[in-house]
Amino acid sequence: MRRKLRMGMVGGGRDAFIGAVHRHAATLDGEIELIAGAFSADPKKSRLSGRDLLLDPARVYGSYVEMAASEAALPNDKRIDFVSIVTPNHMHFPVAEIFLKAGFNVVCDKPMTYSLAEARKLRTLVKRSGKVFALTHNYTGYPMVKEGRELVKKGRLGEIRKIVVEYSQDWLSTLLESTGQKQADWRTDPKRSGVAGCIGDIGSHAENLARYMTGLRIDSLCSDLTTFVPGRKLDDDGNILIRYKGGARGVLIASQISPGEENNLVIRIHGSKAGLEWSQQNPETLIIKYAGAPAKILRRGHGYLGKTANGNTRLPPGHPEGFIEGFANIYKEAAKAIREEVGGRKVKAHDYPDVEDGVYGMAFIETTVKSSTAKQKWIKFPRVWNLSQNRR
Amino acid sequence: MRRKLRMGMVGGGRDAFIGAVHRHAATLDGEIELIAGAFSADPKKSRLSGRDLLLDPARVYGSYVEMAASEAALPNDKRIDFVSIVTPNHMHFPVAEIFLKAGFNVVCDKPMTYSLAEARKLRTLVKRSGKVFALTHNYTGYPMVKEGRELVKKGRLGEIRKIVVEYSQDWLSTLLESTGQKQADWRTDPKRSGVAGCIGDIGSHAENLARYMTGLRIDSLCSDLTTFVPGRKLDDDGNILIRYKGGARGVLIASQISPGEENNLVIRIHGSKAGLEWSQQNPETLIIKYAGAPAKILRRGHGYLGKTANGNTRLPPGHPEGFIEGFANIYKEAAKAIREEVGGRKVKAHDYPDVEDGVYGMAFIETTVKSSTAKQKWIKFPRVWNLSQNRR
Amino acid sequence: MRRKLRMGMVGGGRDAFIGAVHRHAATLDGEIELIAGAFSADPKKSRLSGRDLLLDPARVYGSYVEMAASEAALPNDKRIDFVSIVTPNHMHFPVAEIFLKAGFNVVCDKPMTYSLAEARKLRTLVKRSGKVFALTHNYTGYPMVKEGRELVKKGRLGEIRKIVVEYSQDWLSTLLESTGQKQADWRTDPKRSGVAGCIGDIGSHAENLARYMTGLRIDSLCSDLTTFVPGRKLDDDGNILIRYKGGARGVLIASQISPGEENNLVIRIHGSKAGLEWSQQNPETLIIKYAGAPAKILRRGHGYLGKTANGNTRLPPGHPEGFIEGFANIYKEAAKAIREEVGGRKVKAHDYPDVEDGVYGMAFIETTVKSSTAKQKWIKFPRVWNLSQNRR
Amino acid sequence: MRRKLRMGMVGGGRDAFIGAVHRHAATLDGEIELIAGAFSADPKKSRLSGRDLLLDPARVYGSYVEMAASEAALPNDKRIDFVSIVTPNHMHFPVAEIFLKAGFNVVCDKPMTYSLAEARKLRTLVKRSGKVFALTHNYTGYPMVKEGRELVKKGRLGEIRKIVVEYSQDWLSTLLESTGQKQADWRTDPKRSGVAGCIGDIGSHAENLARYMTGLRIDSLCSDLTTFVPGRKLDDDGNILIRYKGGARGVLIASQISPGEENNLVIRIHGSKAGLEWSQQNPETLIIKYAGAPAKILRRGHGYLGKTANGNTRLPPGHPEGFIEGFANIYKEAAKAIREEVGGRKVKAHDYPDVEDGVYGMAFIETTVKSSTAKQKWIKFPRVWNLSQNRR
Repeated sequence: MRRKLRMGMVGGGRDAFIGAVHRHAATLDGEIELIAGAFSADPKKSRLSGRDLLLDPARVYGSYVEMAASEAALPNDKRIDFVSIVTPNHMHFPVAEIFLKAGFNVVCDKPMTYSLAEARKLRTLVKRSGKVFALTHNYTGYPMVKEGRELVKKGRLGEIRKIVVEYSQDWLSTLLESTGQKQADWRTDPKRSGVAGCIGDIGSHAENLARYMTGLRIDSLCSDLTTFVPGRKLDDDGNILIRYKGGARGVLIASQISPGEENNLVIRIHGSKAGLEWSQQNPETLIIKYAGAPAKILRRGHGYLGKTANGNTRLPPGHPEGFIEGFANIYKEAAKAIREEVGGRKVKAHDYPDVEDGVYGMAFIETTVKSSTAKQKWIKFPRVWNLSQNRR
Repeated sequence: MRRKLRMGMVGGGRDAFIGAVHRHAATLDGEIELIAGAFSADPKKSRLSGRDLLLDPARVYGSYVEMAASEAALPNDKRIDFVSIVTPNHMHFPVAEIFLKAGFNVVCDKPMTYSLAEARKLRTLVKRSGKVFALTHNYTGYPMVKEGRELVKKGRLGEIRKIVVEYSQDWLSTLLESTGQKQADWRTDPKRSGVAGCIGDIGSHAENLARYMTGLRIDSLCSDLTTFVPGRKLDDDGNILIRYKGGARGVLIASQISPGEENNLVIRIHGSKAGLEWSQQNPETLIIKYAGAPAKILRRGHGYLGKTANGNTRLPPGHPEGFIEGFANIYKEAAKAIREEVGGRKVKAHDYPDVEDGVYGMAFIETTVKSSTAKQKWIKFPRVWNLSQNRR
Repeated sequence: MRRKLRMGMVGGGRDAFIGAVHRHAATLDGEIELIAGAFSADPKKSRLSGRDLLLDPARVYGSYVEMAASEAALPNDKRIDFVSIVTPNHMHFPVAEIFLKAGFNVVCDKPMTYSLAEARKLRTLVKRSGKVFALTHNYTGYPMVKEGRELVKKGRLGEIRKIVVEYSQDWLSTLLESTGQKQADWRTDPKRSGVAGCIGDIGSHAENLARYMTGLRIDSLCSDLTTFVPGRKLDDDGNILIRYKGGARGVLIASQISPGEENNLVIRIHGSKAGLEWSQQNPETLIIKYAGAPAKILRRGHGYLGKTANGNTRLPPGHPEGFIEGFANIYKEAAKAIREEVGGRKVKAHDYPDVEDGVYGMAFIETTVKSSTAKQKWIKFPRVWNLSQNRR
Repeated sequence: MRRKLRMGMVGGGRDAFIGAVHRHAATLDGEIELIAGAFSADPKKSRLSGRDLLLDPARVYGSYVEMAASEAALPNDKRIDFVSIVTPNHMHFPVAEIFLKAGFNVVCDKPMTYSLAEARKLRTLVKRSGKVFALTHNYTGYPMVKEGRELVKKGRLGEIRKIVVEYSQDWLSTLLESTGQKQADWRTDPKRSGVAGCIGDIGSHAENLARYMTGLRIDSLCSDLTTFVPGRKLDDDGNILIRYKGGARGVLIASQISPGEENNLVIRIHGSKAGLEWSQQNPETLIIKYAGAPAKILRRGHGYLGKTANGNTRLPPGHPEGFIEGFANIYKEAAKAIREEVGGRKVKAHDYPDVEDGVYGMAFIETTVKSSTAKQKWIKFPRVWNLSQNRR
């Protein structure tokens, strides 16, 4: 009989932001249940977090090492089917490695690793393991993003000429990390976050969104990263000119010091026939624009949308879906693959970001930093991909 | 130790819309689990629905009568803590009655009953039972609606002068019920829906929202209900002039035949000092307007909002919450009361619509129909209330 | 040879608001020049206003009586071709009467007269005179309003079912008339404004707009007018239920006490096939909405619009036109008729509100007041029309 | 006695777009009248255009050379007070030169000249002449742009950190110049337009707007200009990274091949304390945003705005002003200077773009082209300025 998938979590204890999001998203459809976790590097905090979550104390662990070993030792009908990794960036690789080696499928927060070198290593590990690896670039889970992708694929925009994508926030407008705020603390710390701040944290989402919707790969880029807040160690703002293979041009804007911006991720794609516009703060709407004809307002939930958008929808139009549902769509697709793997069936291609997207994303981050800091000029994008999304 | 509350459901089988919403909403926070149900009047369909939901077949019943009896016979640590009733309107009362009498707490969809007379009877039953009864007027669950209510209470708008509230849809623009579409079928059928169509289905939400936000009660009203689509038996459009006790004026507009409107519930409240505007299709924003000063855009999730709004929030600003989260807030508050009841503690006032709101709502529906069809004039609102929200 | 039309003005001196608007609008296209005026009941103020306007002092008069007589005595190639009347309401009739009798064409601000009885008299005068009479219900001058009208006429909306039209302001939220503010002073004074305040001043615009766009006439109405500000003598807020001939329903909302509303005139028209939405604060856009298909955003200035919209346009799309241009379109159309009259040619039908619209508007005002104050119930609309717009 | 200023025009005959705009804008306030012109290089077309404009045929000339000579020969109380130059770019300098030398004040369309070298020469000519020279960067005429500038000056945004400015259109999405369309014809022709297409035509407006609002000067830039439409000779799209003196960063986006974009000029300015957002397609609104406090919606026409905004306003809030009024504000300010010059008084600083802005703008165009085409890298902005706006 069909059963709920069993999920474990590493990270995401009290005070964390993204852990709760993963739990809401994973369990939304009633297909997955959280049953185990190592929620903090501090065993006591892990235990208290597990209690908050109404978990069996026996399945709440003091460390991820202990968790991987103990879960692997459990019988098949008890042990977790996959682990979700929601730690700071520098801990993605070691946790993923140990769970993959212990035979578990993995869902991992982004950016995938601390460095491109680690990303390449992780790719090798994943391939060798035969396990499912999903990366939560959650914005590609929104139904209207999927609709946009489908319109591009169908040629409705003609040849893509220009992409303008922006992700702006304001929460690092001041030296928040000096106050001990947990999120700011690790996200601005090169030891835990990696070589980039803003560009790694949210610029990478913008890049991934543009690539998901258009399928275009970067040929070269020229970036200008800045640290505006005195005392900060990583960039808190970045602007990038992009040349895509095939001739399209792009502008990518990211900022964590733009007052009044919350999570203002907006993309506009201009083709030879039409243009698209989508905003994550108003995610239910996709506007398609024409030269010389009225723009159309496409809305989530309608029968006139394509199969992919409608396969990722839960509510009728006008009853707003949001961030959780978009995030849940990543889990929903990864769960299909995990069910296949757990059931010993062939794992097919499903619609979630994977380890190749993660390698590409890390290459993007490192190339951007190199263009801005070392050279201050246009540089070529390294050859890293064998992007799975092109196989889909 | 703290445990998840156990929920049962009556109605909400395959093809139903609102059942799935209740399940998403109830379980979102990991505080409630669905464990039993009588999902359809057709026992086979009930069973299949239970299987879809990965439930234990022993807890999937062929009828609500069987379910109430069987669950009541289970030991305390097994049986459901409450039942959610998500049937068509005419089945709310009989189901609620049998579960209340069997000793269960109840969450019920709106409008509360088939008629005002039934509503009064249900009130008596609830009071006698000592059980929790929550009515899912879900729009009052949105954080920015709660913020608006708090601003009104604090006097930020001055004396309320005018309320304009509208709920418009388009899905009944044609005789959809003739195609066998299940939702249209029962919602336009006087035997299952009650004396009103559009006004009962969505006009009642608009009334409830206005009352929740302002606390104002209706003194008299004059309505104009219409059935535009030939062959339809109930109103599909209605407009109402309202005079509130204390002198405020209102306009309530409801429609199910307005092309392009999805679930366009919008409220504007004008006071002597300021005005408010909120829209459920853009629920994260509350605009407060002044004569002679710039309007302010309040957004969900910010520290500058009041305690109630922030106590009903799950995500940072700019990561959109939506319909499910608003609905979940009704369950969250009802769950507090249910935990108290189940734990044998005194049930305190919490922030959810209750049986008094249900009685008021039914009075609204019947008064509106009377004004429009029988008399075509202003009529007094009946004295029905002892509104619990005034106690909060 | 073609020459500029010569315009005179009565009213519109220093401190007036609407006089300047008329001057901007009339002269925008270089087809009309202002050359004479009696700008105030106070001869000194009239003279100073004329000097501000760089007029020949010989053509600036101390009273409208003097002006009518003096201009009539001038030779044909000197005297004004028409007069614009921009006085408070109670002075529309006497000024129009004297100029019509002196042989001049007339452009007059709205509402047309002080009372319906006066309006009927004026209609007789105009018909007898053979002169052009244009009424500046300026909102019908916007290109996208004209587009909307054309779409309705072409049947794109199907059968009209429902109209929701609103005009809300905030400037009378307090007893502004007690401060000596000139606009508030006369507009809230029954001796100068007439039987209605808000409904006469702006409700009449809303009614006219709905009628212009749909061609529908009122069968009966039920209104609720209120004076919210203590000490005020006329209504400052009103809400009206309308039944149109043919079965459509309407809601008309007007307010001058809604904080933060500037000149928020919005109309939505719902038909059996599609709906329209237009807002005067965003006048360049007309949204057409469908059940089950994407809404379209029509924008001023595009080739895809109809002839009427494009014949009333001056700029390319995206370079915003506004209030002045819309107002100028009324003058432009009236000027065509005036050129015909002045040239001794047959005066054809052109696209501007005329004396019949003025009679209808006064009937609307008086019926609304009667429904609200005397009877508090639905009443029949009087038979007053022979609406010229139906001839166009 | 005060009289209307007499304006002549070079260019702007039948089929021209911008000539009509200049005429509407110049005459809107009744302070300026058009009385002479050489409207086309084709004398017959010039004559017909003059007739359309109801001008005295004696003042309609066959060439600008003839016009300058003839007007200069007229007595003081007849001849024009200034000339407006609305020809293609390559004709700005020769026309300006001849009129300046003939003793006339000049208003000139943008970009100021064909090349930076010409711009420098023109600066010398203007300075020597002592005449008024105004450049119609019209977007700086909008009241809410002026309000934004004032807020920046007052420090309300704190230190400026980032500017994102964009001007996007779609009208050159296809090879329109091959159809003979007059505007496309000269604007894409290097012989008449200069070294740049899109960047010269609209990118220069974006740059000017950013500079006007912030006062910041460019330190260096890196640009990426593209010609997307095969067969086109100049860029039709461009994206630029900017570093401002003092440390602010900028992104400037310009496009004439973005489908559905009309005249989408949008600017966002982010400071250490607050951010601003303004859009020319919605020009009545200026949004000011804060980290951790509600955004405010500032609207044109309110008493709470600063003196400059309110000194450039004609209508009450909510009655939309638009492109013409903004453009008219440039003429209004230039007219103050011209009245001073004509009256023999000292010409004071007024609020309009002048010859220094023109030189700066040409430097911007040439630097941008150089960065993109010759070097593909960051380059320093040349030292050209003595910007008059810094004196104001």
